Amino acid sequence: MQIGVIGSGACSKEISDLAFEVGQELARCGAVLVCGGLSGVMEAACKGAKEAGGTTVGILPGTSREEANPYIDIPIVTGLREARNIIVVGSAQAIIAISGSYGTLSEIAFALRLNIPVIGLKTWELKEPSGKGGHSILEVKTPLEAVKAALAAV
Amino acid sequence: MQIGVIGSGACSKEISDLAFEVGQELARCGAVLVCGGLSGVMEAACKGAKEAGGTTVGILPGTSREEANPYIDIPIVTGLREARNIIVVGSAQAIIAISGSYGTLSEIAFALRLNIPVIGLKTWELKEPSGKGGHSILEVKTPLEAVKAALAAV
Amino acid sequence: MQIGVIGSGACSKEISDLAFEVGQELARCGAVLVCGGLSGVMEAACKGAKEAGGTTVGILPGTSREEANPYIDIPIVTGLREARNIIVVGSAQAIIAISGSYGTLSEIAFALRLNIPVIGLKTWELKEPSGKGGHSILEVKTPLEAVKAALAAV
Amino acid sequence: MQIGVIGSGACSKEISDLAFEVGQELARCGAVLVCGGLSGVMEAACKGAKEAGGTTVGILPGTSREEANPYIDIPIVTGLREARNIIVVGSAQAIIAISGSYGTLSEIAFALRLNIPVIGLKTWELKEPSGKGGHSILEVKTPLEAVKAALAAV
Repeated sequence: MQIGVIGSGACSKEISDLAFEVGQELARCGAVLVCGGLSGVMEAACKGAKEAGGTTVGILPGTSREEANPYIDIPIVTGLREARNIIVVGSAQAIIAISGSYGTLSEIAFALRLNIPVIGLKTWELKEPSGKGGHSILEVKTPLEAVKAALAAV
Repeated sequence: MQIGVIGSGACSKEISDLAFEVGQELARCGAVLVCGGLSGVMEAACKGAKEAGGTTVGILPGTSREEANPYIDIPIVTGLREARNIIVVGSAQAIIAISGSYGTLSEIAFALRLNIPVIGLKTWELKEPSGKGGHSILEVKTPLEAVKAALAAV
Repeated sequence: MQIGVIGSGACSKEISDLAFEVGQELARCGAVLVCGGLSGVMEAACKGAKEAGGTTVGILPGTSREEANPYIDIPIVTGLREARNIIVVGSAQAIIAISGSYGTLSEIAFALRLNIPVIGLKTWELKEPSGKGGHSILEVKTPLEAVKAALAAV
Repeated sequence: MQIGVIGSGACSKEISDLAFEVGQELARCGAVLVCGGLSGVMEAACKGAKEAGGTTVGILPGTSREEANPYIDIPIVTGLREARNIIVVGSAQAIIAISGSYGTLSEIAFALRLNIPVIGLKTWELKEPSGKGGHSILEVKTPLEAVKAALAAV
């Protein structure tokens, strides 16, 4: 099982702590963590996963494996810059979005487009123009709930 | 000048009429219209542009130029599926978002990420988690205002 | 009709002259020239096309329209680096390869893969391992022959 | 260490056997095998790697993890079709090319472009137009030599 963790490359201590716990819990549940491979939320989640004995995959935007954070086991070097966001999403069976900025928003959008479940922890709030409803972010309160919801959604 | 028009491949008559007027007005102002090349909002905008003597570019998701709507002058065949959304955005100096679904949301996100101005007509409402502010969608009421705002932003 | 011209971003005067003539002849025949948008063979071909009143499209690898050569009418800003090579090829109905290095070789390979005719002017020689035959480069001697062969192949 | 194995999705028994041995030997040396994730050379190499206890990564062209061959541990779902070839190459520290068709040729070209060593087993023969020399394929005779050469090149 591969679960994506998305969020900013720069984040507060509070958000970083949430990401660490999400990574830890994913590893305990035996899920492979897929992310964008950089710092901030991505690094904190990978650190949590590695401390709990998990496996981490980083889908990198640049052309060098050196840009991966130190907790990435499998660096995927795309050279596609932000276009790699859709690969992070497509390679995950569910996505946990933790806070995040515009890059995270693009990943949430792609996940909803591709019918991949999105679990949100203090992340974007969206109001669709058509008001048709459709897929949306499942908001939760804690890292443990986020991981449980992601695994339940797969 | 290249201006992007983004929105769903399927839309109501009301939205289609707005897109047509946006395309028409862009052509009158001498702007090249860049879009995803398919139906719905994209086709209506291209039809408007062609009736006013403009030029249209369609950045297609599939592998055949045949999937372009009949009002595309320059089909760009990417074969990248939804990943082509970032090319639509990157090739435009400003973006006009008309209603739209998840694909449109991904394009809005990429535009905000890349510092490309986004003008919104009945489109997504977003609430960023950090509340820092940052870039956002400039909402307008009419096609004419949308085109004026896009040209002013370039 | 859209015809691709591929070759290195740096080239000799001899190769540059061939590219210029190819661009000129394509424009005279009413074909839109599609290329990677940079210098060398691409710029020389675009210059030829513009002097003959043609239209040019540049599929750029970077994130800025400023990297286009001065003879590009329609810059497509991909941000995908070398991965954009497949878009140059896919957006053309036939390809003219003029000399070239590894990037050009990747484009020739993609064109053969996608069943897009490849006309070669002093370009790569290839020997397939299986020896099955299959598609291959049609070698010609002059710019005029190259353009004629490309148009005939469409 | 991540080593790429490239070759056709359909191949003879002789080529498949070579790929199996390459995969087996890579796993014995502790290298992670990166490939396009499909059948033929890719599947045979992954089967060899898994029988020797190795780890395999498949960079898939389509939109479903289901298209991975049964020996892929980590499926990366790109949805980019052939454009994913550059990610296979970029994610490897050296490439072993076994026979192959046009897709393989595009990967060899990208590897040479990105300064990633290419080891060839019965693969394409190339003659560069400029004759400048530059990077080229290191041809070997056996799977064992191929793996040794790849590891030595890293």
